[in-house]
Amino acid sequence: MSEVYAVRRTRLRECCNAAGSAAALVSRPANVRYLAGAAPEGAVLLLGRTEDLLVCAGPPDDRSPHNRPDEALRLHLVPGIGGDPAVAATGLAVGQGVDSLAVEEHHLTVARHREIRSVAPGLRLTGIAGAVEQLRVVKDEEEISCLRIGAEIADQALGELLESILVGRTERHLALELERRLVDHGADGPAFPTSVATGPNAGRPGHRPTDRRVEEGDFLSVCLGATYRGYRCEIGRTFVIGTAPADWQIELYDLVFSAQRAGRESLVPGTACRDVDRAARQVLDSAGYAEALPVITGHGVGLEIHEDPQLTPAAMGKLDACVPVTVEPGVHLPGRGGVRIDDTLVVRPEADGGPELLTITTKELLAL
Amino acid sequence: MSEVYAVRRTRLRECCNAAGSAAALVSRPANVRYLAGAAPEGAVLLLGRTEDLLVCAGPPDDRSPHNRPDEALRLHLVPGIGGDPAVAATGLAVGQGVDSLAVEEHHLTVARHREIRSVAPGLRLTGIAGAVEQLRVVKDEEEISCLRIGAEIADQALGELLESILVGRTERHLALELERRLVDHGADGPAFPTSVATGPNAGRPGHRPTDRRVEEGDFLSVCLGATYRGYRCEIGRTFVIGTAPADWQIELYDLVFSAQRAGRESLVPGTACRDVDRAARQVLDSAGYAEALPVITGHGVGLEIHEDPQLTPAAMGKLDACVPVTVEPGVHLPGRGGVRIDDTLVVRPEADGGPELLTITTKELLAL
Repeated sequence: MSEVYAVRRTRLRECCNAAGSAAALVSRPANVRYLAGAAPEGAVLLLGRTEDLLVCAGPPDDRSPHNRPDEALRLHLVPGIGGDPAVAATGLAVGQGVDSLAVEEHHLTVARHREIRSVAPGLRLTGIAGAVEQLRVVKDEEEISCLRIGAEIADQALGELLESILVGRTERHLALELERRLVDHGADGPAFPTSVATGPNAGRPGHRPTDRRVEEGDFLSVCLGATYRGYRCEIGRTFVIGTAPADWQIELYDLVFSAQRAGRESLVPGTACRDVDRAARQVLDSAGYAEALPVITGHGVGLEIHEDPQLTPAAMGKLDACVPVTVEPGVHLPGRGGVRIDDTLVVRPEADGGPELLTITTKELLAL
Repeated sequence: MSEVYAVRRTRLRECCNAAGSAAALVSRPANVRYLAGAAPEGAVLLLGRTEDLLVCAGPPDDRSPHNRPDEALRLHLVPGIGGDPAVAATGLAVGQGVDSLAVEEHHLTVARHREIRSVAPGLRLTGIAGAVEQLRVVKDEEEISCLRIGAEIADQALGELLESILVGRTERHLALELERRLVDHGADGPAFPTSVATGPNAGRPGHRPTDRRVEEGDFLSVCLGATYRGYRCEIGRTFVIGTAPADWQIELYDLVFSAQRAGRESLVPGTACRDVDRAARQVLDSAGYAEALPVITGHGVGLEIHEDPQLTPAAMGKLDACVPVTVEPGVHLPGRGGVRIDDTLVVRPEADGGPELLTITTKELLAL
């Protein structure tokens, strides 16, 4: 595994050198983990001129074999109490004879940036805005395999919940139960706070579970994900509670299903991100739901649950192969509820069978 | 409740005016919540020249009566997708004729700060480093009552766990079970990731639960807390598994208990923070454990689990009445385990009975 991290660091070093900086200071935790194999709390990575260093506030917790710093990196522990690893790393960079340091201006606060400047007044500070995030967009097969296992875990947790009795239980209890099951099946933890939405809450994007209880006739929408070895996936499904869905429920469900399918089927390398959004959105638009739609149809996933690319009407850029994204259109009707269907898929060329669906729980409308 | 927020905003406005700024932009979520009653995701608070505004990326989720924006504040929704409320608020400040805006430089990133500057090039940007955090240190009785209820919930969750069978269960399962019980008893959620540490892990500060199972003869240390109406408390206890603790376990426990009691008893208004730390630390130091001690003996709690004051050897400042703090010394012996005892207390004058203990679970050494 160590070589993977070294290759990633070499790619970043090339970006920095091309931009005129001999060294870079990476502070955003997911970026540190991507380049160093682990991100102990508060740690920063110095891509130095003569040596790369992981600078930590305390000894890294290396009991998990999947969250250990790359052994090719030298560890530097900041001595004393409350020392800022970013400041310490800047001092080490100066010690290496670096005269220009690229920092993550979208992560460092103004106050930390000023402190760095004050300990190294002669150092030129430049930005590497989003450089590591861009490297992270296309995943290798090892990363995709972590996402695949995470998706399997989420499918299992969801499947078990569906076998239990739901009527009378609260959104909060169902969400907690799902999170417990994720961990039972081997997840590091939930990928994001689990959303369980019933009745009028169903279909609301990012709904936080309340004490509302599941009732007969409700729509029930659930969105959850597992973190596995740091990688985060997402699945969302909507069900009906009771023996038979009402006509309006079937209609709405079929519509969102068609929109989500249109989005999924457009996941081809080279497609513009905005075209994936449009494929899904126009199905709902043309049925008269333009107002009820969320602003985003999907997004990249990986070490963070929201990564590039964004699938929105204004998104720039095209999809590449091996980019995992969610496709998650939905409609929420205030006071009535709604439907949301969400999968994690990997963009693959048609020659390889087209988009790879990671979250395989059925998308038939189940009456529970 | 609305008046409380208005009074807090007036106090901040006075700070800003004294520092020469007519307006302030508050972006750190806990600070926004403190001043506005709620902090919808990404929202910022503009303390304007003519009007205060809560600027949000989307409509606030106001289903919980205890997390609703102060009705005296006008809401401003940023139109479109992905707009930054901080940038929008800056434009609104300029519209109010503001020429100097104080921002939270310890929270805003360099990139956001630059964006704010670019939309309002004529505006002078100054800093309000830690001003809201300082206002937050001394709590009112309403805030303390939230902490008290949170502590009761944590006590209940811990008490129930102690009645169950522990041997053979993993740290991860015990931690999940505690978190479920916190929510069952009415917490918004855990105040921080629950720590359960067994055997050689026991007593490690901030230990993340592993798959290690509880065994006879183990030390078991548990640290958890509830969030109630946004306020976060903390309790930590150490137990022995089996019928009778070993001599070294009793000795170590008694020592940490004495250190923790010394820390608690020094919580008097006017005491220097470093003296509280010293009171606890010197008990352990003089028993030869100087090397095994964590760097911090305790800290303030409130809307965040780590707030000012810090109880460390280098801390500046004195304790005031109505400041809630943790006192949590511990000793961890590598390979053997250790003991940690952690309470949340409120500093009170002796005339009012001295420090108020919020977390009342027994600190006798229980053999479970």
